[in-house]
Amino acid sequence: MSELSPELVASLEAIVGKDRVLSDADSKAHYGGDWTRVYRPAPCAVVLPGSIEQVQEVVRLAARENLAVVPSGGRTGLSAGAVAYRGELVIALDRLNSISDFNPVERSVRCGAGVITEQLQNFAQEQGLFYPVDFASAGSSQIGGNISTNAGGIKVIRHGMTRDWVAGLKLVTGTGELLDLNRGLMKNNAGYDLRQLVIGAEGTLGIVVEATMRLARPPQDPVVLVLGTPDMASVMEVLEVYQKRMDLQAFEFFSELALQKVVEHQGLQRPFESPTEFYALLEFEQRSEADMELAMELFEHCVEQGWVIDGVISQSVAQAESLWRLREDISETIARWTPYKNDISTTVSKVPAFLAEVESVVNGAYPDFEIVWFGHIGDGNVHLNVLKPDALPKAEFQQRCGEVSRWVFEIVQRYGGSVSAEHGVGLLKKDYLHYSRSALEVDLMRQIKRAFDPAGIMNPGKIFDL
Amino acid sequence: MSELSPELVASLEAIVGKDRVLSDADSKAHYGGDWTRVYRPAPCAVVLPGSIEQVQEVVRLAARENLAVVPSGGRTGLSAGAVAYRGELVIALDRLNSISDFNPVERSVRCGAGVITEQLQNFAQEQGLFYPVDFASAGSSQIGGNISTNAGGIKVIRHGMTRDWVAGLKLVTGTGELLDLNRGLMKNNAGYDLRQLVIGAEGTLGIVVEATMRLARPPQDPVVLVLGTPDMASVMEVLEVYQKRMDLQAFEFFSELALQKVVEHQGLQRPFESPTEFYALLEFEQRSEADMELAMELFEHCVEQGWVIDGVISQSVAQAESLWRLREDISETIARWTPYKNDISTTVSKVPAFLAEVESVVNGAYPDFEIVWFGHIGDGNVHLNVLKPDALPKAEFQQRCGEVSRWVFEIVQRYGGSVSAEHGVGLLKKDYLHYSRSALEVDLMRQIKRAFDPAGIMNPGKIFDL
Repeated sequence: MSELSPELVASLEAIVGKDRVLSDADSKAHYGGDWTRVYRPAPCAVVLPGSIEQVQEVVRLAARENLAVVPSGGRTGLSAGAVAYRGELVIALDRLNSISDFNPVERSVRCGAGVITEQLQNFAQEQGLFYPVDFASAGSSQIGGNISTNAGGIKVIRHGMTRDWVAGLKLVTGTGELLDLNRGLMKNNAGYDLRQLVIGAEGTLGIVVEATMRLARPPQDPVVLVLGTPDMASVMEVLEVYQKRMDLQAFEFFSELALQKVVEHQGLQRPFESPTEFYALLEFEQRSEADMELAMELFEHCVEQGWVIDGVISQSVAQAESLWRLREDISETIARWTPYKNDISTTVSKVPAFLAEVESVVNGAYPDFEIVWFGHIGDGNVHLNVLKPDALPKAEFQQRCGEVSRWVFEIVQRYGGSVSAEHGVGLLKKDYLHYSRSALEVDLMRQIKRAFDPAGIMNPGKIFDL
Repeated sequence: MSELSPELVASLEAIVGKDRVLSDADSKAHYGGDWTRVYRPAPCAVVLPGSIEQVQEVVRLAARENLAVVPSGGRTGLSAGAVAYRGELVIALDRLNSISDFNPVERSVRCGAGVITEQLQNFAQEQGLFYPVDFASAGSSQIGGNISTNAGGIKVIRHGMTRDWVAGLKLVTGTGELLDLNRGLMKNNAGYDLRQLVIGAEGTLGIVVEATMRLARPPQDPVVLVLGTPDMASVMEVLEVYQKRMDLQAFEFFSELALQKVVEHQGLQRPFESPTEFYALLEFEQRSEADMELAMELFEHCVEQGWVIDGVISQSVAQAESLWRLREDISETIARWTPYKNDISTTVSKVPAFLAEVESVVNGAYPDFEIVWFGHIGDGNVHLNVLKPDALPKAEFQQRCGEVSRWVFEIVQRYGGSVSAEHGVGLLKKDYLHYSRSALEVDLMRQIKRAFDPAGIMNPGKIFDL
C-alpha cells in the first residue's frame, strides 16, 4: 500500500510512540533506500522501534494485517536488499544502538542491531581489543545489516567475514516470535546451527535485533608490500609462496589501468618506476624482526623466479597507509566514468583464466570499453569495472552493459563461481541467482523461508520470489 | 524391518554390486553401531556404495520403499548418532575414500566422505600443509562423519571446529537429489548458506558424500606450558592475559584429582612439586624467540598476581608432547571407573560458577561420588566425569547418574549453555535437547528436515523425533 490507514498508524504509534512513525516524503526516501540508485524508495511508512519487544509487536501487527516489512540498517547495501519499493513498512533499527555486557574473558560484547560498525570498532579499541571486519561503509553500516548481508571487506583472508564474529544473535521471525540463537557459546553441537542460516539471509527470515559479537586481540603494526607482476599467473605464485609461510592479513590486487587512474586523479606516486601488468598488495602483522626478514626472503625468491618485477615495502605505519591508498582510492577514482560494476568470485586459482575470458569477451564485443580490475584476490573475489567511454551516452552504455552482465554470469557459472561474492543478492542480483544456485537450492531456500515467515511478510521479493 | 526382502536385496545388489550388500550378523553389528554402547545395533542390512551416483540410487530406492537409512562413517560417535537400532538400512561411506584435486593456491583438497581424518592429516603434511582439526578418534573417524557432527577437538580456540574447514560439500538429500553446496568458494553471498545447515545435522538432512576441505599453513614447533592455579577464577585470569597478547593454539584444564589419577596410573611425573586446585595447559606456536620471551613475561605477571602458583614450560617438542599426556591420558585413565560422562559448555567466563554449582549439587546428594573435571576451557567446553565408587553396583550407579543428568542439564539451561558442546545429540541427548533449544527452534529444525527429506527416511529419530 502507498499510505497506511489512520487506524494502522494509531496502532503503530501505540507500540513505538507518537514521533516514531514517519510518513513524510523525506523520511520515506531516507529510510526506504540504500546505496543502490536503481529502485525508487516507496514505503508506506517508517517505524523506529526502541526495544526488541516493540519490534516483535510491530511484526505481529504486520503479520495480522498482511503488511510486508523491510528491515533497515545503515542503508549502505549495494544490492538493494534494504530497498522498500512497493509500499512496504520500513522497520529501522537505528534506536537499538546500545553496546553492553562486554566480557574480557570471552572477548565478546552484546550489540543492538543498530550499532554502527565504527562504533563497535572504537569500543573494541577502548578495551584494548579489535573488531576486524572492516570496509568502506564502516562509518554508517550497522551490525544488524552486516550480519544480514554477511559483510566482508579487506581483511577476509585473515579474519573471515562477519559470519565468523557472530557468537549469538536474536531474531524476530515473521510471526513476531523471538529466537535467541547460540547465546554466545563457542561450542554448541546441539541441533542445527540456525544462526548460520540467518547470517546472510538479507532479512528474509526475520529481523536481526541483537547480536553477541566476538572481538580479537589487537594487531601489531602492519607492514605493506606492493609488488609488480608480469601477469595474473605470477600473482597466484606470489600468493602461494607467502601464504605457506606467513599469516597474511590482506592480499589485494589491481591492474595497471587502475593504478594509472589513481595516480593521475588522486595525486599519488607510483609505488616504483617500472609499470607492470598487475600489482599485488600484501599486508602482514609485524610481530618481530623475523617477520620482516621472512617477507624479504620470500620477495627475493619471487624476483628470482620472475614472478615479481619490482616492489616496495613499507617502513612505517604512515607509509603502509599511503600504499593502501593505491588500492582503496580506486573505487572513488573511477566513479567519474560511471562504471558498470560486478562483485563476483571464483575459487582463487581459477581467477587468472576467469579474468582472461571475461576480458576477451568484453573486449571482443566492445573494444572501446576500458576494463578496470581490482579486488580481494586472496579470497577469489574480484571487482569488474567497465568504464563508460566519454563519448557514449549513458543509456546506451547501460543497455550494452546488460549484455555484458549475461556474458559475465555465464562465465561465472562455468567457473562454478558466485554472482555475489560479498554484496548479497537483494533485488539487483535476483534474476541472476540461478547462475550460482541450482533450482533445488532455491526451492529449499523458499521452504526454509516459509518455516520462519509463514505469512511471507519479511522483506519479500529479495533474493528470490516467493 | 529386521530383514530385507529378497527383491530389495536384489535391487540393492543391482546398484552397488553383489558383495556390497551385507546382512550377516557380524556386519550388522559392525556397521550398525558407534562408540556408544547403549543401543544394540539392529539394521536390516548394510550397503557399501562405491560412488556418489550409487548413493543417490540407493536413497531413491529407500525413498520409494519408505525404508529408513542411517549413514555410517568411522562409527566413532559418542551420542549414538550413527546407530541403526530399529531395522534401518545402513549406508556405509567407507568406499568413497579418495583424495583428489589438491590445489596449492587454494590450499584445498577434495575428499570422499569416507576419507579418514588421519589420512587427510597425512596428505596435508605430504604437501607441506596442515589439517588442524584433531581429536582422539582421528585414526578411524571419517570426513563425512566429522562434517555431520561438526567435530571439534583440542585446537578449537585457534583453528575452530570442522565447520571452519569445509569449503564446499555435496549432499544426497532424502529424495536422492545431489546438492553441490558452495563449490570451494571463499566468498559467496548469493543466498542462504545451506552448507552451514548440513554441517552438524548428523545425517538428518541427507548424506554428505564429498567435501572440499581447506588446509592450513604448517605450524612451527609447539611450546606447552602447564600452570598450577589456586582456583577456577585464576584459570580465567590466565586465559585473558595470554589471549590478549598471543595466539594460543590450545587452552585446556584439568583438576588435581584428574592429575592424581593420571600420575598414579600412567606412570607420569607431576609437572611440578606443589599440588594446586586446577591446572591450565597452554600451547602456542614458537615463531621466534620473542614468543618465548613474551610467554615468560606473562607467566611472571600471573605469578605476581597470585593467579599461578607454579608452572613448567617445555624446552623441546618431546617435552611438549609429554606435558600433553597429562591432559590427554585422563580419559583413558578414568575409564576403569566406568565414569558417567557429560560433554557440556557454557560461555567461557561462566565456567567457574557453573563448575562450583554442579559440584555442590552432585556432592550434596552423593558425597561418595568422585568428580573429575577436564576439558577445553578456552572455548567453554568442559567434560564432567563422575566416577563410580568401587563398592557401588553398576546398575545403581547408572540409575543415580540419571538423576545427576537432570540436575546438570537444569544448571546448563540456567547458564544458557549447551547439552552437547561437541559430541552432537544423536539418540543419547535427544531427550535433553529442550534444555538448550527452544520449542520454536526444534519446530524450525523439523520443518527444515521436511524440506530436505520429505519422506522422513534420513536418519530418523536422531536429534529430535519427527
